[in-house]
Amino acid sequence: VSSLPETTVQGVPERSFLVGDVPVVLWTPSTPTDHRPLVLLAHGGGQHKKAPAVLARAHQLVARHGFAAMAVDAPGHGGRPRTRQDERFVAAIRELAAAGQPVGPVVEEYNSSLAARAVPEWRAALDHVATRGPVGFWGVSMGAAIGLSLLAAEPRVTAAVLGLVGGEAPARAAARVTAPVVFLVQWDDEMVPRASAVALFDALASREKTLHANPGRHAAVPAFEWDAAEGFLVRHLTAAPG
Amino acid sequence: VSSLPETTVQGVPERSFLVGDVPVVLWTPSTPTDHRPLVLLAHGGGQHKKAPAVLARAHQLVARHGFAAMAVDAPGHGGRPRTRQDERFVAAIRELAAAGQPVGPVVEEYNSSLAARAVPEWRAALDHVATRGPVGFWGVSMGAAIGLSLLAAEPRVTAAVLGLVGGEAPARAAARVTAPVVFLVQWDDEMVPRASAVALFDALASREKTLHANPGRHAAVPAFEWDAAEGFLVRHLTAAPG
Repeated sequence: VSSLPETTVQGVPERSFLVGDVPVVLWTPSTPTDHRPLVLLAHGGGQHKKAPAVLARAHQLVARHGFAAMAVDAPGHGGRPRTRQDERFVAAIRELAAAGQPVGPVVEEYNSSLAARAVPEWRAALDHVATRGPVGFWGVSMGAAIGLSLLAAEPRVTAAVLGLVGGEAPARAAARVTAPVVFLVQWDDEMVPRASAVALFDALASREKTLHANPGRHAAVPAFEWDAAEGFLVRHLTAAPG
Repeated sequence: VSSLPETTVQGVPERSFLVGDVPVVLWTPSTPTDHRPLVLLAHGGGQHKKAPAVLARAHQLVARHGFAAMAVDAPGHGGRPRTRQDERFVAAIRELAAAGQPVGPVVEEYNSSLAARAVPEWRAALDHVATRGPVGFWGVSMGAAIGLSLLAAEPRVTAAVLGLVGGEAPARAAARVTAPVVFLVQWDDEMVPRASAVALFDALASREKTLHANPGRHAAVPAFEWDAAEGFLVRHLTAAPG
């Protein structure tokens, strides 16, 4: 593990380091404690660990709620190298999009490949920070594909905001997820058919799970849903133990 | 209009009166203003204007947010007389339930009949209190069947919590509803088939509408949904005008 110096951005201390060859960023309040809640923030396809949406969520979780937040670059994202298979997926998605063809099926296959590689990386990052507080997860689209595989394997994550995802591999992972979930669906999603998203929600084994559906396309999740997601994580990660 | 003396229950002033022959109860904070938000609370089938769930919501809206709240007894509910047609509906529902048969279709027909009568009553009650603040509506099941008809006819209502309802007549009303809506669906509702509830959500003409689906039967809406509903109304009824 190599570590970069801590900086403070908009009053929020931020620390960047590598776990293996995975770039990690950790945001924490200034007051020391190892029992605070930690939220894992997974970025979407083509984005990176400090994309504006990730950064905004991290800052809100730290500044409003005193949580810690952690993000990593997914395989082939941020500054990380792409495999030749990654290059083929990205080229295929670009060609389909340029031709006005549906990209959903290829994106789904690419996300499965990324999720398989990302799960051990997230687990190693979680081992590294050695938090003793409750852990939540927040990721939609590619971030949710990764999150479902992570939640299926990782009992330390006890609440998750997921969504904008469907398909067979994610649904198989969902059947092993038992943590409470808020699942976002865009009712007119051009990448994830409504029935596929609803089938994924149905596949979740979680006793507490809530589907939030809004009109609009993949990227048009209304801002109030991010506030609701934050409220959901706060409710679950700050509840009295037991 | 005849009026009963004001009383105070758990610190919340409560005033009961008749508008025509409809019993109305109005809860308001002690501080006088006619611009505060008002929420119309519609009870469910077989309940009445001061049923525990209605009372709890009214008290929270007044005590936490400084809103006013108003409830009425629906036709044939609370102390109000039933028509012979009402008696036939109630007897039919009871017989079907006793025989383990689905009551949904008869409930739907009964609710349509009640909604047609309840809309002018709600409008008269709203005229009577002559509020100058924004108006919200909160009702599920029978309360939502009434609410959809009211919202289709009444431009003063600008945000609504609805749900646990489906069917053709409510869907026709929904097509004329344009106010923002949170729509609650119980995924395993024994009275409202999932597809019927989703079709109703789709029928809403509202630009902002969100479906919240949770596992469980008709009466098993999780408590966190009532908090979310309250947050939705607070967001819409206290927003800056324009």
